[in-house]
Amino acid sequence: MQKNSLNVSSISEGFVLDHIKAGKCMEIYKYLNLDKLDCCIAIIKNADSNKMGKKDIMKIECPIDVIDLDILGYIDNDITINIIKNDKVVEKRRLKLPVQITNVLKCKNPRCITSTEQGLDHVFVLTDEEKKTYRCKYCEQKYK
Amino acid sequence: MQKNSLNVSSISEGFVLDHIKAGKCMEIYKYLNLDKLDCCIAIIKNADSNKMGKKDIMKIECPIDVIDLDILGYIDNDITINIIKNDKVVEKRRLKLPVQITNVLKCKNPRCITSTEQGLDHVFVLTDEEKKTYRCKYCEQKYK
Repeated sequence: MQKNSLNVSSISEGFVLDHIKAGKCMEIYKYLNLDKLDCCIAIIKNADSNKMGKKDIMKIECPIDVIDLDILGYIDNDITINIIKNDKVVEKRRLKLPVQITNVLKCKNPRCITSTEQGLDHVFVLTDEEKKTYRCKYCEQKYK
Repeated sequence: MQKNSLNVSSISEGFVLDHIKAGKCMEIYKYLNLDKLDCCIAIIKNADSNKMGKKDIMKIECPIDVIDLDILGYIDNDITINIIKNDKVVEKRRLKLPVQITNVLKCKNPRCITSTEQGLDHVFVLTDEEKKTYRCKYCEQKYK
């Protein structure tokens, strides 16, 4: 029976991302560039949840200033972030839509300067919080 | 402290893949097409290991006939597979190099029939077990 249980040990510093929409964990893994980190990462996809039916959970052991979590607000507003330091949850953070997103979304307007010039940052700005509308900082094209 | 521990419950039917080379778990996730499965999957990347220093571990809860694990022999020969049924480990399997691999590797020979004809299976055959050499079934091009 030994190998039928899996122990995810507690971490001294890092993050637990809870209440991730079921199936979204790999998208988050990609957006946070976690493949570039050497730290210990635990992911549970499609875990049972009383509140949500199914959910994903992620646990990332790393110095808490290494990862910029703001982008998560864009991906999934309902994620709960538990920040852990010295073996304790020091903060629970709810996400907001980020005011500005850099180098995550790409402007699809072929006439935009980011399409014609190489090496420019792709920057999108939140222009309508209620409708979750982001527009390119340069050409104001709406991101769909 | 509650959210600092993560409980991966035991499964009644499925697989535990252990001793995966550290960092290889996402490649396995991709090769096994796990994104298409709705089942519960737990992944630990860069877990501490007495034997290996670091390792990855995966736990997949699904009917055991749903996944073809043979391809894992090609990706990482040292993975230990624990097959679970009725809450018990019913088999421990060591991997061998698969004799034939279908639609995983792609033949890069531009003159191969699989490059010119659409919809053909890409099939590679093990031609040298010691050197882990695979050749295209159609044009015998060696896979590098």
